[in-house]
Amino acid sequence: MKPLVGIVMGSDSDLPVMGKCAAMLEKLDIPYEFSVISAHRTPQKLEEYSRTAKDRGLKVVIGGAGGAAALPGVIAAYTSLPVIGVPVKTPALGGVDSLYSIVQMPSGFPVATVAIDGAANAALLAARILAVSDEALSARLEAYTADLGRAVEAKSARLQEIGWKEYQKQM
Amino acid sequence: MKPLVGIVMGSDSDLPVMGKCAAMLEKLDIPYEFSVISAHRTPQKLEEYSRTAKDRGLKVVIGGAGGAAALPGVIAAYTSLPVIGVPVKTPALGGVDSLYSIVQMPSGFPVATVAIDGAANAALLAARILAVSDEALSARLEAYTADLGRAVEAKSARLQEIGWKEYQKQM
Amino acid sequence: MKPLVGIVMGSDSDLPVMGKCAAMLEKLDIPYEFSVISAHRTPQKLEEYSRTAKDRGLKVVIGGAGGAAALPGVIAAYTSLPVIGVPVKTPALGGVDSLYSIVQMPSGFPVATVAIDGAANAALLAARILAVSDEALSARLEAYTADLGRAVEAKSARLQEIGWKEYQKQM
Amino acid sequence: MKPLVGIVMGSDSDLPVMGKCAAMLEKLDIPYEFSVISAHRTPQKLEEYSRTAKDRGLKVVIGGAGGAAALPGVIAAYTSLPVIGVPVKTPALGGVDSLYSIVQMPSGFPVATVAIDGAANAALLAARILAVSDEALSARLEAYTADLGRAVEAKSARLQEIGWKEYQKQM
Amino acid sequence: MKPLVGIVMGSDSDLPVMGKCAAMLEKLDIPYEFSVISAHRTPQKLEEYSRTAKDRGLKVVIGGAGGAAALPGVIAAYTSLPVIGVPVKTPALGGVDSLYSIVQMPSGFPVATVAIDGAANAALLAARILAVSDEALSARLEAYTADLGRAVEAKSARLQEIGWKEYQKQM
Amino acid sequence: MKPLVGIVMGSDSDLPVMGKCAAMLEKLDIPYEFSVISAHRTPQKLEEYSRTAKDRGLKVVIGGAGGAAALPGVIAAYTSLPVIGVPVKTPALGGVDSLYSIVQMPSGFPVATVAIDGAANAALLAARILAVSDEALSARLEAYTADLGRAVEAKSARLQEIGWKEYQKQM
Amino acid sequence: MKPLVGIVMGSDSDLPVMGKCAAMLEKLDIPYEFSVISAHRTPQKLEEYSRTAKDRGLKVVIGGAGGAAALPGVIAAYTSLPVIGVPVKTPALGGVDSLYSIVQMPSGFPVATVAIDGAANAALLAARILAVSDEALSARLEAYTADLGRAVEAKSARLQEIGWKEYQKQM
Amino acid sequence: MKPLVGIVMGSDSDLPVMGKCAAMLEKLDIPYEFSVISAHRTPQKLEEYSRTAKDRGLKVVIGGAGGAAALPGVIAAYTSLPVIGVPVKTPALGGVDSLYSIVQMPSGFPVATVAIDGAANAALLAARILAVSDEALSARLEAYTADLGRAVEAKSARLQEIGWKEYQKQM
Repeated sequence: MKPLVGIVMGSDSDLPVMGKCAAMLEKLDIPYEFSVISAHRTPQKLEEYSRTAKDRGLKVVIGGAGGAAALPGVIAAYTSLPVIGVPVKTPALGGVDSLYSIVQMPSGFPVATVAIDGAANAALLAARILAVSDEALSARLEAYTADLGRAVEAKSARLQEIGWKEYQKQM
Repeated sequence: MKPLVGIVMGSDSDLPVMGKCAAMLEKLDIPYEFSVISAHRTPQKLEEYSRTAKDRGLKVVIGGAGGAAALPGVIAAYTSLPVIGVPVKTPALGGVDSLYSIVQMPSGFPVATVAIDGAANAALLAARILAVSDEALSARLEAYTADLGRAVEAKSARLQEIGWKEYQKQM
Repeated sequence: MKPLVGIVMGSDSDLPVMGKCAAMLEKLDIPYEFSVISAHRTPQKLEEYSRTAKDRGLKVVIGGAGGAAALPGVIAAYTSLPVIGVPVKTPALGGVDSLYSIVQMPSGFPVATVAIDGAANAALLAARILAVSDEALSARLEAYTADLGRAVEAKSARLQEIGWKEYQKQM
Repeated sequence: MKPLVGIVMGSDSDLPVMGKCAAMLEKLDIPYEFSVISAHRTPQKLEEYSRTAKDRGLKVVIGGAGGAAALPGVIAAYTSLPVIGVPVKTPALGGVDSLYSIVQMPSGFPVATVAIDGAANAALLAARILAVSDEALSARLEAYTADLGRAVEAKSARLQEIGWKEYQKQM
Repeated sequence: MKPLVGIVMGSDSDLPVMGKCAAMLEKLDIPYEFSVISAHRTPQKLEEYSRTAKDRGLKVVIGGAGGAAALPGVIAAYTSLPVIGVPVKTPALGGVDSLYSIVQMPSGFPVATVAIDGAANAALLAARILAVSDEALSARLEAYTADLGRAVEAKSARLQEIGWKEYQKQM
Repeated sequence: MKPLVGIVMGSDSDLPVMGKCAAMLEKLDIPYEFSVISAHRTPQKLEEYSRTAKDRGLKVVIGGAGGAAALPGVIAAYTSLPVIGVPVKTPALGGVDSLYSIVQMPSGFPVATVAIDGAANAALLAARILAVSDEALSARLEAYTADLGRAVEAKSARLQEIGWKEYQKQM
Repeated sequence: MKPLVGIVMGSDSDLPVMGKCAAMLEKLDIPYEFSVISAHRTPQKLEEYSRTAKDRGLKVVIGGAGGAAALPGVIAAYTSLPVIGVPVKTPALGGVDSLYSIVQMPSGFPVATVAIDGAANAALLAARILAVSDEALSARLEAYTADLGRAVEAKSARLQEIGWKEYQKQM
Repeated sequence: MKPLVGIVMGSDSDLPVMGKCAAMLEKLDIPYEFSVISAHRTPQKLEEYSRTAKDRGLKVVIGGAGGAAALPGVIAAYTSLPVIGVPVKTPALGGVDSLYSIVQMPSGFPVATVAIDGAANAALLAARILAVSDEALSARLEAYTADLGRAVEAKSARLQEIGWKEYQKQM
């Protein structure tokens, strides 16, 4: 199936984080492609990728990067598709550098920023965007979030049943 | 025309910021509605608003709030529509409190966060989302961003023509 | 005995922190209930819980959550009981996100915020609140804090007796 | 009427903030006393005040201070009453210094911390605490917060009636 | 004379800051060109500018930008010339967003970052770089910094002569 | 009288802050000298000043500087006298840059750091240090701090006498 | 020998840090006493300790504490001796909470703050203060810092002799 | 071959970071020298080193230091060569203290600051500076960065070939 979402990460060292994005898209049956493209090491690749994204059939692009994370913003500069940014945690500053580099975009070029290392949520945001015009996906998404709610309720019931000390032992 | 975007702000004191969101939606000919609903002062109103948003025909919800800004996240808890969050600047912490309260959402419930006071970008992000299935809007959006580029080029040309000192005097 | 304090945590992953809250309430003989309810995954459960808290006999509610920690604030929106917030430490930002999300509440809806991961103190604050109209509890609380003081004095005496190097070895 | 709440501020320069606390207590008909006592300039006064607070009939103490704001914590060290801390905004660090100095209390001595400059909320938190054993106050408090909700709804209705541009002009 | 230094700013609103860069280059007799080019609004212009910089005879490029300041890093991606970054102060975060976006570059693509709003120092850094192979400029630069030293000494002497109170009055 | 304290500021623009240091030393009758010396613009002057400080009869050196505030640390490198550092507030970062640059000294070379813009406290700390071997100064210092306490008590009494509203009007 | 320096730590969990303070005082042959006293758990002990410090012959007091670290400031409130504060690193905020709680003292009551976990430097600062009136100590102190310099030079020589790769292997 | 770049680190504990700088210079065939010199422990050595740097044939100096990192700024005070600063990560503050101490230089004395622990980039920045007047080095530098780009492309191709799950397993 033709990919609807393009995941781009600035470095393959971001895979432990961005892999969760791919996994969530799979869970929601959303076709995607996954690339390593760097705003600084392969800037032309990034331009080409972003410029052609819409014509290649992508509907949403997700960019994950850490530090001076120009990646999602540069994608947003070259395409009018919605661009989601995942700030990746960094060793020195905990990812607040990534967050500021991604979220503080100038007027004209929004990047839909999710939490630091929030790659699964980036996938879910892409799903919400696609679901605007895809009722079946909307239903799958709502089923998924309803499951989350039920899981919390089950945990709460179990905590009350066995007591918190026992619950903690079993964690 | 039936609104496609719902703008919600937590307090009417956020209007100087969130008004820019409305203005940008108007510029792009996107029908919207604009409400003051507080996650803390009118929580049931917020629940009702969010729960019915999709059925009322909204495609995107934009929530702007400052401080312990629960608003966009709570909207995202009650609807599967894409929710955009605008962290509003605060007197003491400059809006970093608003930003963290909005962007650091738990897995399952993304809020598409834009820059602090980035209300115009929230509108543009909504436009990008709607344009996924609306070619005419996509064209208007691309025209708008192309205009931004031309304006920068014109300014650069003028700066070089008259010199930076003269340019600065005329600012 | 009917619970007087309700502990709510947003996720069972908060149990290693929030368990200390339950343990302290037990030590002070304060009956409590302990639930997992999420502001985002089970928002209606949270509304229902908060709305009925007072009628069910609760006197204080303690909410612990991390990241965009809307939980305590939303509880405070639905009940007029005193609500205590425990910001849980987060991997990326150390819990400063949780702290800001909980403490920076808008006028009208205070959350009594304690230290990051300060779950034991949340229990002690609940005890102080209950003790306003419960002299026996007040006495237990004062006995507990007097014990803390005596423990410090004993440690100081021992440090001076055996010397800091020996003391450190025995730690 | 005998004061139930003691407001203490570390310096009379905090009055523009802490005055809002007194005003809110008056609005809720809660008798209070108001003092200037400094943890550093008048430490013995603070000890004496805190030590005798309970016997003098106080039920809650509110301490507001800025910078290295030891005040609320020291009060909590000398009394078992619930102590509420108001971190006052500072010129250099915006009050994050005050916030950390107040909220990050060691285990054993909680301070119920509200937002930076959140003096009105400190009063409302005191009211919630007193209302645990005062149904009439509980009713006044709920009436007050219901009014807040109605005010938001009225503003929202007006915004929709006259449009946001007109609304903004009238602000 | 052919420009040796290219100053680029992301927006003409940065002129009050970046003008100081131009002024300092003039003072040191270093020929420069000055452009407005945005990493997001005119990304292709930026690519073209950066790619051709070396062939057009530039030796150093200075990029000033605020917020998610991708500009200097993207220039560094397209040219092997030394690139100096000036983080411009921002209303919400004071420029710490600009600083992190500029300085935290990934391995391979350094940006020589100066202080927030440190545009004059960017010019002086460019001068130090050019002076590596230009003894006359090196002499001008050393004369300039020697003047700075003498000015400080003169101020100190005057402060001691007339006393600090009188000195402060005359400021 | 021969100066016992040397005040050094990195720039005469720090005078509005550092003047308070001089004023406080005068109030306590402590002879001092006051210089403008920059760690970067007049580094040799600073070395010479610091190296000779002890032999010239100084007992304490106070250094005030902003931004990358190397001044107090470099003084401490060249003299074994106690060195007090005053971090001066900065426009972009509020002085947190100055604070970190002064307080985070490596092992071996302490700088006694006071609050941001805490120049009066630097003088009082110098007084405490000198008073270790000067009983008369110790008495003057204790008289001064006792006055501070009495002033607080007088303010508190007046606040209670005329009420906080009237007090605030008279501020 | 009668102690000249009093080391106080708020909790025995601070011993791994504050032990370095004691060790350095021993190295410099400065007699000291070492106590565990908490501003919150044993406030009266702290008052008594601080109030009698001078009469008991102490010349300097060093207080180390973490979090809402009121300890050094409260000591400074009760004694006119120089008080040195050591901000202890904290798990959530890295010690920036401790630092702000200690350094941001109000006018009148300075605390000579050293680096986070800078306990050895606190001892060296105490030594500098005592050396103001103790030439023999001054000589020991200068010998110690001269040794530090020689150690650095020896390391540099060795690095150059064996090369950095070999040097790193031997670390 | 005569060294063109001088690497200076404030302590040999910075070697795990600064060794990467030396390694990168070797990779680019740039002759360098490597020293341990401390701004505080060996200040005269630092003065002498910096003052003579140019005459000894150095073209660029790289200084790496952590905490109150005065080193690069003091070097810049004594030489007109371009000075590159590497803020070294610190245990308590993650290196934000080092960063501010290095980047926030006063007007007149720029330090070309790279990322926290960005020692390899410091070497690459030195190479860019030297390459301004060395075409052979410029070619080596461009070859190196082209290699970086190709490596990213190869990784991307491999990720797409074997899938992200397999790729992650092989990491």
